[in-house]
Amino acid sequence: MNAYRTHTCGQLTAADAGETVRLSGWVHRVRDHGGVLFIDLRDHYGMTQVIADSDSPAFAALEKLRAETVVRIDGRVKLRDAALVNPKLPTGEIEVYATDMAVLGPSDDLPLPVFGDQDYPEETRLAYRFLDLRRESLHANIMLRSRVIKWLRDAMWDAGFTEFQTPIITASSPEGARDFLVPSRLHPGKFYALPQAPQQFKQLIMVAGFDRYFQIAPCFRDEDPRADRSPTDFYQLDIEMSFVEQKDVFAAVQPVIQGLFETFGGGRRVDADWPLIPYSESLRKYGTDKPDLRNPIEMQDVSEHFRGSGFGIFAKLLEQDGTEIRAIPAPTGGSRKFADRMNAFAQQQGLPGMGYIFWRRKELPQVARHNRDHPLFIEAERRVLNEELARQIKERGGPRAAWYSVDFMADQPDGSHLEAAGPIAKALGPEKTEAIRTQLGLGEGDAVFFLGGKPADFEAVAGRARTEIGRDLGLIDENQFKFAWIVDFPMYERGDDGKIDFSHNPFSMPQGGLEALNGDPLKVHAWQYDLACNGYELISGGIRNHTPEIMFKAFELAGYGRDEVEKRFGGMVKAFRYGAPPHGGCAAGIDRIVMLLADEQNIREVIMFPMNQRAEDLMMGAPSEPTNEQLRELRLRVLPKDA
Amino acid sequence: MNAYRTHTCGQLTAADAGETVRLSGWVHRVRDHGGVLFIDLRDHYGMTQVIADSDSPAFAALEKLRAETVVRIDGRVKLRDAALVNPKLPTGEIEVYATDMAVLGPSDDLPLPVFGDQDYPEETRLAYRFLDLRRESLHANIMLRSRVIKWLRDAMWDAGFTEFQTPIITASSPEGARDFLVPSRLHPGKFYALPQAPQQFKQLIMVAGFDRYFQIAPCFRDEDPRADRSPTDFYQLDIEMSFVEQKDVFAAVQPVIQGLFETFGGGRRVDADWPLIPYSESLRKYGTDKPDLRNPIEMQDVSEHFRGSGFGIFAKLLEQDGTEIRAIPAPTGGSRKFADRMNAFAQQQGLPGMGYIFWRRKELPQVARHNRDHPLFIEAERRVLNEELARQIKERGGPRAAWYSVDFMADQPDGSHLEAAGPIAKALGPEKTEAIRTQLGLGEGDAVFFLGGKPADFEAVAGRARTEIGRDLGLIDENQFKFAWIVDFPMYERGDDGKIDFSHNPFSMPQGGLEALNGDPLKVHAWQYDLACNGYELISGGIRNHTPEIMFKAFELAGYGRDEVEKRFGGMVKAFRYGAPPHGGCAAGIDRIVMLLADEQNIREVIMFPMNQRAEDLMMGAPSEPTNEQLRELRLRVLPKDA
Repeated sequence: MNAYRTHTCGQLTAADAGETVRLSGWVHRVRDHGGVLFIDLRDHYGMTQVIADSDSPAFAALEKLRAETVVRIDGRVKLRDAALVNPKLPTGEIEVYATDMAVLGPSDDLPLPVFGDQDYPEETRLAYRFLDLRRESLHANIMLRSRVIKWLRDAMWDAGFTEFQTPIITASSPEGARDFLVPSRLHPGKFYALPQAPQQFKQLIMVAGFDRYFQIAPCFRDEDPRADRSPTDFYQLDIEMSFVEQKDVFAAVQPVIQGLFETFGGGRRVDADWPLIPYSESLRKYGTDKPDLRNPIEMQDVSEHFRGSGFGIFAKLLEQDGTEIRAIPAPTGGSRKFADRMNAFAQQQGLPGMGYIFWRRKELPQVARHNRDHPLFIEAERRVLNEELARQIKERGGPRAAWYSVDFMADQPDGSHLEAAGPIAKALGPEKTEAIRTQLGLGEGDAVFFLGGKPADFEAVAGRARTEIGRDLGLIDENQFKFAWIVDFPMYERGDDGKIDFSHNPFSMPQGGLEALNGDPLKVHAWQYDLACNGYELISGGIRNHTPEIMFKAFELAGYGRDEVEKRFGGMVKAFRYGAPPHGGCAAGIDRIVMLLADEQNIREVIMFPMNQRAEDLMMGAPSEPTNEQLRELRLRVLPKDA
Repeated sequence: MNAYRTHTCGQLTAADAGETVRLSGWVHRVRDHGGVLFIDLRDHYGMTQVIADSDSPAFAALEKLRAETVVRIDGRVKLRDAALVNPKLPTGEIEVYATDMAVLGPSDDLPLPVFGDQDYPEETRLAYRFLDLRRESLHANIMLRSRVIKWLRDAMWDAGFTEFQTPIITASSPEGARDFLVPSRLHPGKFYALPQAPQQFKQLIMVAGFDRYFQIAPCFRDEDPRADRSPTDFYQLDIEMSFVEQKDVFAAVQPVIQGLFETFGGGRRVDADWPLIPYSESLRKYGTDKPDLRNPIEMQDVSEHFRGSGFGIFAKLLEQDGTEIRAIPAPTGGSRKFADRMNAFAQQQGLPGMGYIFWRRKELPQVARHNRDHPLFIEAERRVLNEELARQIKERGGPRAAWYSVDFMADQPDGSHLEAAGPIAKALGPEKTEAIRTQLGLGEGDAVFFLGGKPADFEAVAGRARTEIGRDLGLIDENQFKFAWIVDFPMYERGDDGKIDFSHNPFSMPQGGLEALNGDPLKVHAWQYDLACNGYELISGGIRNHTPEIMFKAFELAGYGRDEVEKRFGGMVKAFRYGAPPHGGCAAGIDRIVMLLADEQNIREVIMFPMNQRAEDLMMGAPSEPTNEQLRELRLRVLPKDA
């Protein structure tokens, strides 16, 4: 007989009844039911119920078992009484009557229980990660992650890509974040860097003539702590292809990502329509370049209604160059209470508040006199009015004989009255208010919120407000994944110092090539794209600039001379001089994808051994003091704190 | 039409004749045959012949093309004349008549040609790796490597293993080599380390309850340069299993590795018999713990024949404790010339020389008188002699009536005489010489070489001599892979300083457990094993010590106190206190496996972007000087050379 097991703890069924078996696993839980012990024995594969009564030679030893002890159990498989069958457990039809037992790995008192759902502080969980990982949901997340990566690899190979490993100890990579440095012992005073991404290497692989590359690539960035990212390293599905345009990359990537989400999305709907949304449109409509399209809210520019209007704050704002008023429609958000809540949200975000209008029902229409030439009156004539409205109009002498209030013009099909509420509506007046309502397609019970200024200053908050509104009002269908390619990123932006700089990846090919670079740099779009999904950026990529001439020009516009480019990206620039194919690709964040699939908000729930947010490994004790010998070999000295 | 291609350069066949196509690729070679241009257009997938005559609108542009320019060709597929069909090329039936051409990526003059087999200095090849990688054999090696890794992953998943990624930025790992350190910016003065192997993490994964782990794991060791290893990092197939004994690991691993070699071995025979050879036996027979079993030579201890013999050097040597004389049989090596060559080899290895005997044929037997009680004489009587011998013996008066020389006793079936040649045979005398011959099973035309002293001092050279002899005499069947598990490694060894230390992996479980550790440490075997293949160590592994009590005792014997163990391996020791399963595993060197499969001697032929032997990346320029800003953030100062 095998030393440790004949079966796993997830394997035995009614078909095994009567068999003599050997199991090994962890003592998940021991219950003593009046002289009969019930032990849930757990391993990677499942759970099996072991029982022992006082007739069992193993009883005395089993009785003393502490939770999480590793034991070997010999016993006989018995069918459970019908009433005790557990249909939720694959082994729920049987139990194992223990005849012998051996402790393989004893356990001290646990700092963190495995059984049960009790929450524990993250620092404890990280210090005892090996216990935390035994818990069901984390165990499942980690297995999901592994299966996702396996699936991605297979899908990429099936699509004709080859995985290559690029160096991990290498030169600084130009991704813009901070490098982790690695001092060289053989060349004291010099340092390697860990790659922020295999960007240069994957481009070199294309120049080397390999056509379709991918890699599940570890990437390293020495970044300041943030809740939703690992402070040291992360994995990306890195992709590069030769002889492609943007659409070819999209055509290669969509089936892989869509298939992944269909396979591991837990039944959530995966939208097969992946629209291409220009970057500027995405900012305008969603306030972000990673929109959550499950949220139906689309923002609109409503500046024209405020320009020169009675709402002085916005009217005045609009007198400045480059300003606009953005409306965030909030269908079903039409209540003072909700408007107040969003106002509080805006204040949390550092704004003085957020203007709003909302529309509510009022049973009795107010009648007022108006000039018959008023455009809204004329509009009213054109509209198909319902019977009740027609009756009222008739009673008052027909359309041409009576003047109705603007509020009345906004009447609803059921004849009730629609009232625009809030200080902005008052200041703006009924006509402009109604024009806004019409533009946004809102109605009774809806609201709209406004943010104004320079888009760059308010768009991020607008985007968050859109999300907050959508979430709060239940407009987001949580049960689906919606994707969009964000395209036409600007190549350059003007910094606060007035200087032109790359707005994203300096290695992307400018749309229009060299010619475009001879015009206004701020109007140049890059062949660069992101994939947004449910409010996250899953993928980022571009068609690369593979022509040294265009590259030097592109860098020159951003203020980098030829020498600087040669110095920083010498390896790649040199390669481009010896026959470089047009190429492009992208990189998908694995951790983020798994978070989405596992429906987790914290990256540490999908990584086996994560650092804490201070970039410390509490289990292994890293980082730690080096030895003097190590420092001497590297010819380094650590300076005192106040140096 | 697609911007760059309708087909790859390896795709078109006679079935496509008449089609209008677009190809993109590198100009491999241009030949001008009297006004007709022949261009070999190459991409990742293959090579297509493009032709153009002076009627082609593309002729003028094509004529000027430099090798390795990337071009796009539009043209028509034509069948080649029967006489010009190239059956070796998948596209050899057709050619593409170019009608249009565009340069996609121009090329300067090449520092390293891609076409042709010319050798180039390695430094040039590494500096222009992107060109070197376009060459056929390196391209094929890199693709082989990728396919091997893909195959291994699939095989491991199919065998029920799950791949998990372990941290790369972590704490020092106790593998005994030098760590690469990574200074921490958030914790100045403290350092992370890159893992020498995921040893502790994979054991923690077992303690965390995941049953069967594998990983294609990057490993980092700051080692001094050596020709056959990467100076910075390498990849291993890392494996760990819970609830297993040694035989379970072997049973899991053999099908994977054997299948891999069968799949990628290029038709070389893969021996399915994987013997278990104890470490001590391997050293005795092969002089190494990674024997090449394709070599039939097995060394033997022949001390008894030399003890007190006439060959004074060895006789005297044997008077010292712990010495022995090892014989390396050399079948078919029986010539002065070969003996001289091996002697020269021994001198290259730093020995004064290597004693030998060889046996040659001599037609006329010498007859001499001997004591009839001589054991060899009695032996001769027992032997079945051939007719000629019987006749001669009869002529001289029958066995009991005459005395024959030892040489005669060693006669061969055809009646010819076998003479032992060389100074050792002379000094040793015929009886002992013959005893050695009999023990080793040698005969006419064979030789034996001797090394003596303490085995630890000569075994390595003996092993190399065995290899040299086997290779030189053509005894090695190059067309096969022969595997063996080397088992029962000693747990401890006595160092030059007389102290007991671990001889290999301190984390292996001692055979016999705690009880064994209470006896003579030098007699304790570890549950530790290597897989040898064709003279290389492909895999190393062990059943781990998962019991803190046994671990502390094991370390205590090697002179490490409890505190030291807690300090250095705290993460793992802590984990073992909370229910650790028995577990074990191994790690297989990927680079080495690919080298074997690709039949390459240099590791840089199977790595896409290797460092040179000075641990420099000549293409990317690593390592390099850090900026002052970087050093300041890390609070580090580089000391001057003479500090």
